[in-house]
Amino acid sequence: MTKQERAARTRDALIRSAAGEFDRRGYDLATLSAISSGAGVSPGALHFHFENKAAVAVAVEYEAAARLRRTARLEYRRPSDALQNLADTTHALARLLREDVVVRAGFRLSCANDRRTELNLRQEWQSCVQQRLAEAADEGLLAFGPEHQQDLARTVVAATVGLESLGRDNDEWLSPRTVTGLWRTLLPLLAGPDAFPDPEPADTVTPAA
Amino acid sequence: MTKQERAARTRDALIRSAAGEFDRRGYDLATLSAISSGAGVSPGALHFHFENKAAVAVAVEYEAAARLRRTARLEYRRPSDALQNLADTTHALARLLREDVVVRAGFRLSCANDRRTELNLRQEWQSCVQQRLAEAADEGLLAFGPEHQQDLARTVVAATVGLESLGRDNDEWLSPRTVTGLWRTLLPLLAGPDAFPDPEPADTVTPAA
Repeated sequence: MTKQERAARTRDALIRSAAGEFDRRGYDLATLSAISSGAGVSPGALHFHFENKAAVAVAVEYEAAARLRRTARLEYRRPSDALQNLADTTHALARLLREDVVVRAGFRLSCANDRRTELNLRQEWQSCVQQRLAEAADEGLLAFGPEHQQDLARTVVAATVGLESLGRDNDEWLSPRTVTGLWRTLLPLLAGPDAFPDPEPADTVTPAA
Repeated sequence: MTKQERAARTRDALIRSAAGEFDRRGYDLATLSAISSGAGVSPGALHFHFENKAAVAVAVEYEAAARLRRTARLEYRRPSDALQNLADTTHALARLLREDVVVRAGFRLSCANDRRTELNLRQEWQSCVQQRLAEAADEGLLAFGPEHQQDLARTVVAATVGLESLGRDNDEWLSPRTVTGLWRTLLPLLAGPDAFPDPEPADTVTPAA
């Protein structure tokens, strides 16, 4: 392993350990010593990579944003229509929030963000949902005309953003069951007669565990 | 004015000034000197009431929770059925978040809350919505049987919690228009034939400005 590879591995381990600390204890109570020992490195090694706690938090947020975008991009490449894609992307993002501590900590930091970075993960999630809905409208899949489009789009955005928000206190809100229930309620409102086959509210990508 | 009245007024002014600071700049960047000068009092007067910035933040959160509960209680006493009450309460809470800087700052602090207090304003909002829905079910107003009740209740909770979350970046999400649009979408899903007259999605309490 080259020196660069070792440095990159240490940095990754520090980001993962920091995400765990931020997720468990919040930014204010997280300590640099717990972060370095959680990564199995010395405090000096941490300071080689990050100047202070704020710099570690910024790195966690950027890594979370990168993972969020990568997941959305992967879903987007699947051959399905925009409505199915919207439901599948929500399942994928909920799974990320459930399973990936870096993404979870990134959202938590981004929400508490007092202008530490330009990132806003909640807004990225919102834009992703809005784009898929606009594509569904372009593809002629929606049940409603332009006069109701804004109301429905906002309801979908609010409900999906709400899942993330609620999931912070109780991860049942991000479970496949809850996300499927949300789409079982909302898809019949959204899908017009040209949405064929009917979009599936359950996760069509990851089989149930 | 007695000494006690003066002290209570100063405390109120400090809470209002602190809420403005927390709302504009966030907890980390808010300063005690800006808070005391915003309230028109000396730093010494601030320290008479609050030990430090964390203590001011706790006071803002408790005051926000008190206002939220008072508003929900007032709505609850109105003579209307539980579904109309649910819609009206959401309008009232959105109005509070738009217009009352203490409530807005309280939500923001509560979201970033690293175990400063036992309060969780997002959870209070969620419980309020869930209670009204449970009452609507008891009153036989809902369109759906118990098998779909959980899906629909979760969708409503997620969408209303989402409005608060989205409203932090853009207060159009808390506007009467957006809240009315949400209910225009969701009420037809919720209201059964026994919900008569049809519940009104617009705010039935405060006339449009």
